[in-house]
This record gives sequence, structure tokens and C-alpha cells, in this order.
Amino acid sequence: MLVIESSRQLQELSSRCLREGRSIAFVPTMGYLHQGHMSLLHEGRRRADVLIASIYVNPLQFGAAEDLARYPSSPHEDAERCRDAGVDILFQPGPEELYPEGFQTGVRAGSLAQGLCGASRRGHFDGVCTVVLKLFNLVRPRWAIFGSKDYQQLQVIRAMVRDFNLDVEVVGMPIVREGDGLAMSSRNAHLDREQRRQALCLSASLDEVERLIRAGERDVSRLAETVCELIAQQPLAEVDYVTVADADSLLPLQGTFTAPIVLALAVRFGDTRLIDNRIFSCLESAPLESSVGI
Amino acid sequence: MLVIESSRQLQELSSRCLREGRSIAFVPTMGYLHQGHMSLLHEGRRRADVLIASIYVNPLQFGAAEDLARYPSSPHEDAERCRDAGVDILFQPGPEELYPEGFQTGVRAGSLAQGLCGASRRGHFDGVCTVVLKLFNLVRPRWAIFGSKDYQQLQVIRAMVRDFNLDVEVVGMPIVREGDGLAMSSRNAHLDREQRRQALCLSASLDEVERLIRAGERDVSRLAETVCELIAQQPLAEVDYVTVADADSLLPLQGTFTAPIVLALAVRFGDTRLIDNRIFSCLESAPLESSVGI
Repeated sequence: MLVIESSRQLQELSSRCLREGRSIAFVPTMGYLHQGHMSLLHEGRRRADVLIASIYVNPLQFGAAEDLARYPSSPHEDAERCRDAGVDILFQPGPEELYPEGFQTGVRAGSLAQGLCGASRRGHFDGVCTVVLKLFNLVRPRWAIFGSKDYQQLQVIRAMVRDFNLDVEVVGMPIVREGDGLAMSSRNAHLDREQRRQALCLSASLDEVERLIRAGERDVSRLAETVCELIAQQPLAEVDYVTVADADSLLPLQGTFTAPIVLALAVRFGDTRLIDNRIFSCLESAPLESSVGI
Repeated sequence: MLVIESSRQLQELSSRCLREGRSIAFVPTMGYLHQGHMSLLHEGRRRADVLIASIYVNPLQFGAAEDLARYPSSPHEDAERCRDAGVDILFQPGPEELYPEGFQTGVRAGSLAQGLCGASRRGHFDGVCTVVLKLFNLVRPRWAIFGSKDYQQLQVIRAMVRDFNLDVEVVGMPIVREGDGLAMSSRNAHLDREQRRQALCLSASLDEVERLIRAGERDVSRLAETVCELIAQQPLAEVDYVTVADADSLLPLQGTFTAPIVLALAVRFGDTRLIDNRIFSCLESAPLESSVGI
């Protein structure tokens, strides 16, 4: 595995791969890799001749009051895991490499970025899109693999790829969960023992919604109320949002739903903000996307 | 020469060229081609194995009160000229091809886009960057050739290419002028006989500034005043801006200049807005960039 820090060197390597007819899969991450990331790397390894991963905690997607400074980091362990997963090139740029002095052009994400996490994290998706576009231009992947825990991010990036005519296939992978259901996240490391216990309310409330929908419930407000009630039972949990939205447009829904929906939620435990989601189709009375338990 | 309207087909063709190791030069235009465009096509032809031109009047870069509806058009003559210039592929997308329903992601140009034309045309450079980025992703050129009459556009696009890590060399070509000095522009077609006569004040005032600088003038205000006075002598001319700015940062200057400067101006004649500019270095007391007279 080649570890490189230089954008130019990365672009030269990816150019050479393309000239030689070798396909590239790309997994962009912010490091502190867990089993969710590993599933993305395995999918990339399965698809492509060359697997490229990046580890970069992108300052552009963090608000001033957010947790950039304390985002967890484990560079040596991450490199080991990448090696184990068969990564060919690991891109670990330094802090100045992607935004040198004079940097000024950005991506403005569209309507998909307005609600949900976009409402409480102003500019977040603009920053995500900007760094992803830069990385795509350096890596020039045929496939880019993302997790579905950040479902809105996945949809926003799909829109960018379509709108900018990028020749990349965005692959969304199922959420990977701990044995007890908690969606894997680098930020879980910040939870203390009691927060960790109460954080189960996210996945548990999605399970309850799934049960209700299977039992025939189609009223959007009752689904959201159920989630809010379950979370309210955990004294350390503070709801950021609980939203039932159209799974494609991400527009919030009211009344009875007919099309596939996403139930998305963000909940704070102290300074740590967790997200989770599940997609439901009313037609099959079952989730469209299964989660992978570890 | 292949004329195509489909983005997908264009991208497939450019992919094939790259796989075959053939280099691509690209000249994006809004059509109504004149000798300025021809100089860009000739430069592209000289450099690359494959020359691709586009003709698309990009609605995203026109404000609501601007001249999108009356932008001049001559598709058949343009195709002839492209053929004569050795264009291999002419991309002429229909109005919906680049912005289908649901389109929502855009480029936000940075500080270089704030002054000069950016101040009087809000959002203009965001629209320019968005369509240029899309076209670059479809064409994947090694060289993209632009004229220098839109000097700010050239600098904004250079910044986007650098900031987004696009693997494209942006080539700026000298302004091409009519025999009497008027910078060539598709919009010149809108001028009536008397407007056309008075429009000479743009290039004439740049000539006068050049004379003053050669004679030792270094005071920015006096240069700008000279231009304003010369334009004020033409009763049909209405100044939009006359700005002396740093040639790199485009920040307006005051006092005595030492670094290379751009004198940029925009002047209205009725509904028609013309621009022109010239670069000067105080060191050589001469323009850095010569204009090509026809």
C-alpha cells in the first residue's frame, strides 16, 4: 500500500491507472475507521482493479461551533486497517494540502441539502460537496463508495454527480450496526457509558417504526411522535430533528405516505451528535434497505 | 466534423479519445462566432489531437434583466466556421440538455468574482463556472482556450481549476480587435451606426492610458480619470465601471502602482454592454499582453 500526502502525486498516479485501463474505486473517509468503513473498502476492493482510500478531516464541512477540534483520530490504526482491506493507495493530505492560500471556489449544494442535517449544520453540505469534488478530480474513480448512515449526504452527492456531469458511479452501502443496534460512527467514541446505553434509543425507535409500518401504520405524524416519545424516555438525549421525508426529494411529509420514505433523526448526547435513518416503502410494508449487524 | 447534442454521447466520445491516448483541446463559446473565437479554435487546433468546441448560450450566467433573449445567434454560419477551423466535434446542446428538471447544484465563485463585472452582474460568474465545470467534465480537455476580453472570467476560471484540482490547462489568448481598435464581441452586432462609432472610446481610452504609462504616469486615479473623461465625451456612452486593479487578485488599487495592473472597463450603449481591458506592468512601461489587430 502506497501512502501519499501530495495531491499532485495522487493525480499523476490515478492518471496512470486510467491510461493503463485499470478501473479505480474510491472510499473517502475522515478516518477513525470502523466496521462501517471496512464494508465500504471491501465493496471497493470487490469492484475495481485499484482501490484508493482517503483520510481527511475536512474543515470546510464543520461549523464554527462544531467538533472539528475533537474529531477522533487514529492514523496508524487506520493505515493498518486500510492495508488489511487491500487498499492500494491511501491519500492522507496534510491540513494545507487541499485548501492552500488563495483557495476561494466552492460548491453550493442544492435543495436536497436544505432540511435535516442541512438545517442545523449551515454550509455543511457545501463543504462536503467541495471536498468530494476535489477528491473525485484527484482520484478519478469509476466508483465512489459511501455509507448510508449519512443518507442525506449520499443523496446530495448523487445530485452533485448528476448535475456536474461527473463520470462516477456513487455506490451507497447499508448502515453497519453494533451488535445491540447502534449505528457505527467515529463519534460513538465520545459517548460515556451511560450515554452509550441511552444512545440505543435511535435504532430502537427505528425498529419500533418498522414494526408499526409492518402492522399497517401509514400516518407520518404518528410515526414521528412514536420516535420522539421513545427518545424522550432517555434523559441524556436531546432531539435535534426527527423527520419523515420523501426518500428521493427529502421533502418533509405530512398525513399518509404512499411513496418510499426515509425516517431520519439526529440526537445529541452532551456534545456528541448522532444520526441514524431507515428507508421504508409502504407497498411492501418492510424496509427497502436492510442494515448489517455485526 | 461531428455535431452532437447529447451530453452522454459527448462524454463517451471524449472518454474514447483519452483511452486511445489522444489529447483534447476545448473551446467553449456562446456562438455568433467572430475572429476572436477563430483565434481560440486555431490555438486549440495547433495544440491537440482532437479539437472540441461548444456553442451554448448559458442561461445560468444571465441576470433576469439581462440580454439572454436577444443574444445573437447564427448556428449555421457557426458550424461552417468551426468546420473551417478544423473542429472535430461541435457540441450544440439543446436548452434542457445541461439543466434538466431537478438540477440544483452549482459552483460558488470566490473573491475574484466580486468586483468589476461581478459587482454589476450578480451571480454571473457562478453561472459561468457551473457551465464550464459541466463542460470540462463532459469534454475532459487537456487544454481549454479562452479569450482575454473577459479577463475577469479568465481569472475566475483559473481559480476554479486550481481550487477544484481540475487537470486542465487554461490558456488565455490575446484580445482580437477590429481594424479600428474595437474589441471583437458578439454583442457588437447590437450597436447601431452611431453607437458603433462612439464605442471606439473603449479601446481609444486604453491606448491613451498606455501612452500615459509609457510617459511615466503611475498614479492610478489619474489613469482612471483619463478614461472616464474620454468616455464622457461620447454622449451615447454610459460607464458601468472603470477600474484599475491588481492583475492577479483583481483588487482595486489606489495611489501609485508597482505591480502589474489591469485597467478594465464596462460601458453601456443603450441596451448593449461592452467590456475591454488591458494589462500593464509599470516595470517595462509597456503592456504585458499585445492585442491582435485584424
